[in-house]
Amino acid sequence: MQRPSGRAPNQLRDITITRHFTCHAEGSVLVSFGNTRVICTASVNEGVPRFLRGSGSGWVTAEYGMLPRSTGSRMDREAARGKQGGRTVEIQRLIGRSLRAAVDLKRLGEHTITIDCDVIQADGGTRTASITGACVALVDALNYLQRKKLIVTDPLKQMIASVSVGVYRGVPVLDLDYPEDAAADTDMNVIMGEDGGFIEVQGTAEGAPFARDELNVMLDLAAGGVSELVAAQRAALAEG
Amino acid sequence: MQRPSGRAPNQLRDITITRHFTCHAEGSVLVSFGNTRVICTASVNEGVPRFLRGSGSGWVTAEYGMLPRSTGSRMDREAARGKQGGRTVEIQRLIGRSLRAAVDLKRLGEHTITIDCDVIQADGGTRTASITGACVALVDALNYLQRKKLIVTDPLKQMIASVSVGVYRGVPVLDLDYPEDAAADTDMNVIMGEDGGFIEVQGTAEGAPFARDELNVMLDLAAGGVSELVAAQRAALAEG
Amino acid sequence: MQRPSGRAPNQLRDITITRHFTCHAEGSVLVSFGNTRVICTASVNEGVPRFLRGSGSGWVTAEYGMLPRSTGSRMDREAARGKQGGRTVEIQRLIGRSLRAAVDLKRLGEHTITIDCDVIQADGGTRTASITGACVALVDALNYLQRKKLIVTDPLKQMIASVSVGVYRGVPVLDLDYPEDAAADTDMNVIMGEDGGFIEVQGTAEGAPFARDELNVMLDLAAGGVSELVAAQRAALAEG
Amino acid sequence: MQRPSGRAPNQLRDITITRHFTCHAEGSVLVSFGNTRVICTASVNEGVPRFLRGSGSGWVTAEYGMLPRSTGSRMDREAARGKQGGRTVEIQRLIGRSLRAAVDLKRLGEHTITIDCDVIQADGGTRTASITGACVALVDALNYLQRKKLIVTDPLKQMIASVSVGVYRGVPVLDLDYPEDAAADTDMNVIMGEDGGFIEVQGTAEGAPFARDELNVMLDLAAGGVSELVAAQRAALAEG
Amino acid sequence: MQRPSGRAPNQLRDITITRHFTCHAEGSVLVSFGNTRVICTASVNEGVPRFLRGSGSGWVTAEYGMLPRSTGSRMDREAARGKQGGRTVEIQRLIGRSLRAAVDLKRLGEHTITIDCDVIQADGGTRTASITGACVALVDALNYLQRKKLIVTDPLKQMIASVSVGVYRGVPVLDLDYPEDAAADTDMNVIMGEDGGFIEVQGTAEGAPFARDELNVMLDLAAGGVSELVAAQRAALAEG
Amino acid sequence: MQRPSGRAPNQLRDITITRHFTCHAEGSVLVSFGNTRVICTASVNEGVPRFLRGSGSGWVTAEYGMLPRSTGSRMDREAARGKQGGRTVEIQRLIGRSLRAAVDLKRLGEHTITIDCDVIQADGGTRTASITGACVALVDALNYLQRKKLIVTDPLKQMIASVSVGVYRGVPVLDLDYPEDAAADTDMNVIMGEDGGFIEVQGTAEGAPFARDELNVMLDLAAGGVSELVAAQRAALAEG
Repeated sequence: MQRPSGRAPNQLRDITITRHFTCHAEGSVLVSFGNTRVICTASVNEGVPRFLRGSGSGWVTAEYGMLPRSTGSRMDREAARGKQGGRTVEIQRLIGRSLRAAVDLKRLGEHTITIDCDVIQADGGTRTASITGACVALVDALNYLQRKKLIVTDPLKQMIASVSVGVYRGVPVLDLDYPEDAAADTDMNVIMGEDGGFIEVQGTAEGAPFARDELNVMLDLAAGGVSELVAAQRAALAEG
Repeated sequence: MQRPSGRAPNQLRDITITRHFTCHAEGSVLVSFGNTRVICTASVNEGVPRFLRGSGSGWVTAEYGMLPRSTGSRMDREAARGKQGGRTVEIQRLIGRSLRAAVDLKRLGEHTITIDCDVIQADGGTRTASITGACVALVDALNYLQRKKLIVTDPLKQMIASVSVGVYRGVPVLDLDYPEDAAADTDMNVIMGEDGGFIEVQGTAEGAPFARDELNVMLDLAAGGVSELVAAQRAALAEG
Repeated sequence: MQRPSGRAPNQLRDITITRHFTCHAEGSVLVSFGNTRVICTASVNEGVPRFLRGSGSGWVTAEYGMLPRSTGSRMDREAARGKQGGRTVEIQRLIGRSLRAAVDLKRLGEHTITIDCDVIQADGGTRTASITGACVALVDALNYLQRKKLIVTDPLKQMIASVSVGVYRGVPVLDLDYPEDAAADTDMNVIMGEDGGFIEVQGTAEGAPFARDELNVMLDLAAGGVSELVAAQRAALAEG
Repeated sequence: MQRPSGRAPNQLRDITITRHFTCHAEGSVLVSFGNTRVICTASVNEGVPRFLRGSGSGWVTAEYGMLPRSTGSRMDREAARGKQGGRTVEIQRLIGRSLRAAVDLKRLGEHTITIDCDVIQADGGTRTASITGACVALVDALNYLQRKKLIVTDPLKQMIASVSVGVYRGVPVLDLDYPEDAAADTDMNVIMGEDGGFIEVQGTAEGAPFARDELNVMLDLAAGGVSELVAAQRAALAEG
Repeated sequence: MQRPSGRAPNQLRDITITRHFTCHAEGSVLVSFGNTRVICTASVNEGVPRFLRGSGSGWVTAEYGMLPRSTGSRMDREAARGKQGGRTVEIQRLIGRSLRAAVDLKRLGEHTITIDCDVIQADGGTRTASITGACVALVDALNYLQRKKLIVTDPLKQMIASVSVGVYRGVPVLDLDYPEDAAADTDMNVIMGEDGGFIEVQGTAEGAPFARDELNVMLDLAAGGVSELVAAQRAALAEG
Repeated sequence: MQRPSGRAPNQLRDITITRHFTCHAEGSVLVSFGNTRVICTASVNEGVPRFLRGSGSGWVTAEYGMLPRSTGSRMDREAARGKQGGRTVEIQRLIGRSLRAAVDLKRLGEHTITIDCDVIQADGGTRTASITGACVALVDALNYLQRKKLIVTDPLKQMIASVSVGVYRGVPVLDLDYPEDAAADTDMNVIMGEDGGFIEVQGTAEGAPFARDELNVMLDLAAGGVSELVAAQRAALAEG
């Protein structure tokens, strides 16, 4: 079996994480997983949604979008259609849920951090790239809050990162690009903390059901990928 | 550890599957997982969505809703608010994806089967009850198509069923009801085929990340639960 | 003239009224007019809409829906289409208006009772069954408020009930089922109090205009039907 | 009892019907019932809605709106709010249903006539003025179709007109203006043909239920009012 | 070159401005530019939008609509389609912006004046007629506020008026009607104050780009037209 | 007078035009006017909107959006709100209209080119940067059509570009950034062809009306700015 990109089964695409990509947001990251490129911003606001008011707890939420021509053929603009599609809703809920797991909301105080992940070029794995890049933007936003003395302790519990794994032509592989994703029998998105615990596991049989041992191999691949991704996040954050 | 319901960790709630619950649909099932009750109908239509026209292939899709007072406090009616919420969208996409895995779409020919899962009473696990009940309604709809000679071979690949598992007060448990679900550290929905393969696995850490061995115990529990659910489905279908 | 169901012109269909059909709502009724089956819930909330705040007066409002496959061929789900149809809006306004006539809103205090009527199986007369069943659910909700000492006097002015009448093949008949309704020259929905007064009368000539004496015969039929329906409501309420 | 306007109980307001009010529509009428003023246009289009295609039958439909400041305090513009309110939907369905009763749809052939009733000044009775004015616009549109030889026989079955009746301070009165409407115990809209038959009767108890003999007096008043309105329609049409 | 209407290039259509056209609004004007007829109302409300609360400053905003059959062929009703079209949005923003330039918002105090411009008959130039008529309605509303002692000084800075100019068959012309507008190479809407200053200039090349000297001739024409329009406004206001 | 940026009154910001910014679109440009950065893509599709079918003519249309955190404080995402705001609609109509003026639609044949302008960082002048960048993306798309032999002659009539001018603290200046824009008395957006003709002129008095001679100075500034912008466009296109 040869991957379309020539990568080894356990090999990530080239990963780049560029901080301060735009100038207004408290955290702003351009993340690339190969040809997949996503702008992730983290915006800080005072106050929290109604259900948390007075609780002393903060909130992290996320929105996701794709530029209409981020894909091979142009998609309708969701703002023009007047509603977000089901896939968009599903992904932005996943991003928000995952990043909330990275943060001690009590320490955040009554602030809301809104993550925006906007895909400018898509080649598979936009949700995993989004989560991985957004976590770096989130850290920059948390550092902003501390620098401005708006909070006194660091709410970050641990870095989280995400990668896809799947079974392509019978072989478990890491970090699927679009040609692999379109042909895969099984597709799984794994979000893990840097401590190696699972935040979220979403595996789908696209063709035949998958077996327990395939699941195990895929989870091993994912754990390796997430380690490398966390290293890349840490390196980006070290650059100041 | 004592479960609020007094059940053993690996014990399902009382499961009932009532066929022919309403009279118009080709398949119509009332499914109960304890106090969770869902009406599942399968409606047959000639023709397929545009992207399949002329392909010879059929389609299975699903919609999900909750009656406004299926829950402890009344929720807004989505039809009145003018849009389906993110959770609804996420669940109905999951139901559709899962049931498509049960069917050989080629054998279905250019027919569309629309699954409607409407929760009339909610007590946790509405999506797993929906999938489990809908699969029975789907089989009745497939039998209708064969009885009417609209298709010549049975498109059913295998029965599928779904159950939730989670970690409640540190102990992995099967088929969480609402009080358990609200307090669980980890919540996982598993959809499996009767052959024991995985159709979909969705696990979420609500509190702390979960470890690989916890995942393994939960998957074992799910496999046991799905076996029982498939038996209940088979029993209901045997009643004619 | 023979009615499709073999009923006498002044004969109701089999009427059943099942209280406590679901467990969460303060009032929850499954009502059947023959094959027409509707779940009617009454939900109590503190507070009133803005236009009544501070008035000391309560409010009763209603929403109506049909499950997509409650009918012979599947209808679009209104939540998915993003808006309620004109017929839905018309019916839910009628239900709300009618039930407000049953209640002394001053005695209700600043509480809102929301009626939900969800048709699970349709065979004509869904709006009349809804009103008749909802009035029983409403009484259960009013009793809840008294039992909880949230109000001190009974706000119920009188029971109300509703039935359709029409001219089918030249003959005035009571409580039309779908085959009659689809073929009727005139269709009239009558809502009356148990004191025999009219709450609402809506008569429509589907074919030729109807004459004053036809109107009179239809109103006589309706009065008889409503008496029987109120008796059924009272019997259901007596069961505790 | 003195009516606010000083009218006798059986007295209509001043009625004016101005044809050719605007220049583009095939029928265009400004109708006044006292201070209530409505622009009614009838627009002819080739073709019919999908459910009638190929049937040889035509269609008549209606839409209704109020200018935001047609009322004492400014209402939201429905186009800006992004949806028509329940009252609007109810009224435009009533107008369409009523006017279809005036027309032999078979003779109309596969043409659609769209009625637009736009209230420019409101003082009670906007729906009855709309129906009465729209019927004149409709006749002009039918004459247009005949003049252009698009149809060969006159599809008009009879003129129809509409008026409100109600019980104001215990006295049945005809053609309620806004101050009467706001204070009435009972409010009834009656649509009749010039042959004296009923097209639609919609009576609502705003306060106490109304009795059979009150209903009878109100229907007598309505019959007298409709006769006068049909005379006014005929006079307007005679002016050419 | 002959204009379709036979007018001279610098000749306006017949202009009429009728005040007190409807009875409820604080300002209500029917304006005609030839066959273009627009109802313009100005409605006064206490309070201002959130972004101005506490500022002591007032607000002027505008909405625009066309009756469905104000045009040669019937347009969809925006309220029924559920959204305002791009052209509507563009025009109502222009009207609001222009009229705010006529008013000293500080002197208005925390009141909002909402302008509604509803086209009942269209023949080109609906936005220029709207602005010209609305300014008169606005003055009536400002006078109402002073008469009621709700404000103490006159907020009107100056009258403003608007007219279109364009290049039709190579010749610059004033106040284009629909046949000219549809065929024009260039179309420009000019809003000016009575002091001769520009409030807004919007010129669009429909065919070939236009040159600086064409722009100059068009602006000269517009200045002449606006002078005449202001005179007509002043004459209407003098009538009391 | 000192501009906040220290620029001379007739000085543009730094202009960069990067082609091939993303990989899927037929034309893809990142344009910067100082800190304002916009991704402009041009997407080619076969076919045209309904009103042009069979005409042999092509179409150019545009959509515009801003990433939620392209601005100093986060704006709501239009896709999540379910509608595009008035400003967005106004701008995308302007972009589409302007670019259609650059193209001979007959030579384009029945193809549609959709321009997407997505602002990733905003500092004033997003619409002028969008038009200027989009024209380069459009040329790349037209070249693609010729290279693929889908059309035989070049539909480009001429390059167009756009720049803002305004009066800031009494002095006419070119290419306003956000601090100037927010404080300007007059704001004008000018779209010109490389032949020096005007495509569109939109000038708005934000404070006091502006005089004819101010208009003239602003148009002179704009002409100079557009010359420089066309030179930058040509340079970018020369790079191949």
